[in-house]
Amino acid sequence: MKKQGEILVVGLGSGSEDSLTQEARQAIEESDVIIGYKTYTALIANLTAGKKVISSGMRKEVDRCHQALDLAEAGCKVALVSSGDPGIYGMAGIMLEVAQKRNRHIPIRVVPGVTAASIAAAVLGAPLMHDFAVISLSDLLTPWEKIRLRLELCAQADLIICLYNPRSHGRTQQLTKAWQILSKYKKPETPVGIVKNAGRSDQKADLTDLGSMLSVDTDMSSVIIIGNESTYIAHGKMITPRGYVL
Amino acid sequence: MKKQGEILVVGLGSGSEDSLTQEARQAIEESDVIIGYKTYTALIANLTAGKKVISSGMRKEVDRCHQALDLAEAGCKVALVSSGDPGIYGMAGIMLEVAQKRNRHIPIRVVPGVTAASIAAAVLGAPLMHDFAVISLSDLLTPWEKIRLRLELCAQADLIICLYNPRSHGRTQQLTKAWQILSKYKKPETPVGIVKNAGRSDQKADLTDLGSMLSVDTDMSSVIIIGNESTYIAHGKMITPRGYVL
Repeated sequence: MKKQGEILVVGLGSGSEDSLTQEARQAIEESDVIIGYKTYTALIANLTAGKKVISSGMRKEVDRCHQALDLAEAGCKVALVSSGDPGIYGMAGIMLEVAQKRNRHIPIRVVPGVTAASIAAAVLGAPLMHDFAVISLSDLLTPWEKIRLRLELCAQADLIICLYNPRSHGRTQQLTKAWQILSKYKKPETPVGIVKNAGRSDQKADLTDLGSMLSVDTDMSSVIIIGNESTYIAHGKMITPRGYVL
Repeated sequence: MKKQGEILVVGLGSGSEDSLTQEARQAIEESDVIIGYKTYTALIANLTAGKKVISSGMRKEVDRCHQALDLAEAGCKVALVSSGDPGIYGMAGIMLEVAQKRNRHIPIRVVPGVTAASIAAAVLGAPLMHDFAVISLSDLLTPWEKIRLRLELCAQADLIICLYNPRSHGRTQQLTKAWQILSKYKKPETPVGIVKNAGRSDQKADLTDLGSMLSVDTDMSSVIIIGNESTYIAHGKMITPRGYVL
């Protein structure tokens, strides 16, 4: 009987070993093949020694899922790695969609990880202590009109707003447009925290406010957290009160 | 010279050891004292053997922070544990607020964890693959009018909506009221996933739709994920497409 393959979609958190859950580490150690974006497979290189590692570049997400499925069908246990939490703008959904499109019934298990918003928030203090929205500014796969509407409504709802993918080489205007929308509803003194490469050795954190946030350098590995009307900064920490009587 | 104390606010994820990050485990192992809600200190009992463990009940959140501060001032390394991610409706913000109110300058470090939304999403499939909002239905600390407005606007924004604290012994009407609001904007066939005790041995997951969700039993340890207009359920998995061409 042919060995039954399996796919584990594994969240790496920040990519440092510190940030790995025990379940994620075990999933990588138990797998025959590791597939991932080259930056992430490099981060976990000392966990994958002696294993087959298949790395590929940006925009190869769908290809990686097809490869994972082919290898699992051949009997391999495959770890498809994803930064942060694979279920939040990560590889989990794409993998499940590809398997369904090809009508394959290989077991697929999602191993959750610490998402970039949580890592960035911990670096900044505790800005996500109340209701919040997570919005990606990438309009490669989502019409800008939809992103625009979400920013308008979330700002009016006084939600803390966490922006993923604020900027890339090819997309430089979305963050300015988002800022214009948020500035219609949130005051310029609203605290803003920006963390680049959260949890990695080259991490950079900035505390600023909505009025000044566009002067901070950002790229696609930055997470931007914009407070609600109660958020404040004190002693270098960004905090949104939950409402407890202290 | 007096030994310098320190507070680590540590995210436990689901509470199972599988779900702990390496950093969180290390923080617990290195600490002299562990402080937490009794359910969570019980879950990590085999990591805390031989240590001083201070457990307390619900609504003692602020007391636990004062205790942590007192012990750290006396020179202890204190792990204040919190389920999920301490920065998302957890202990991180309260701890920082208490230290600021008392004007204490003890080092406080937040160790992020896997939040309940990520754990629940992984159990259900990949429902959080697009922009989403996290909203707590507890109106103990937040006026219902504010929660109501957020639900109205997030539903109009076609966000995936993740509800924390949907119901408790004392709060039984909020979920029905939230459902009425969401039903004004989202179709009754919108997929809904409900996970109780996500990642624990007594985990229970249900896939349903908005029209039927009120018939599923929920409590304060349930997370409810309501899809956007593209979310679907297939082969027992709840998936929100990200928009890739497969």
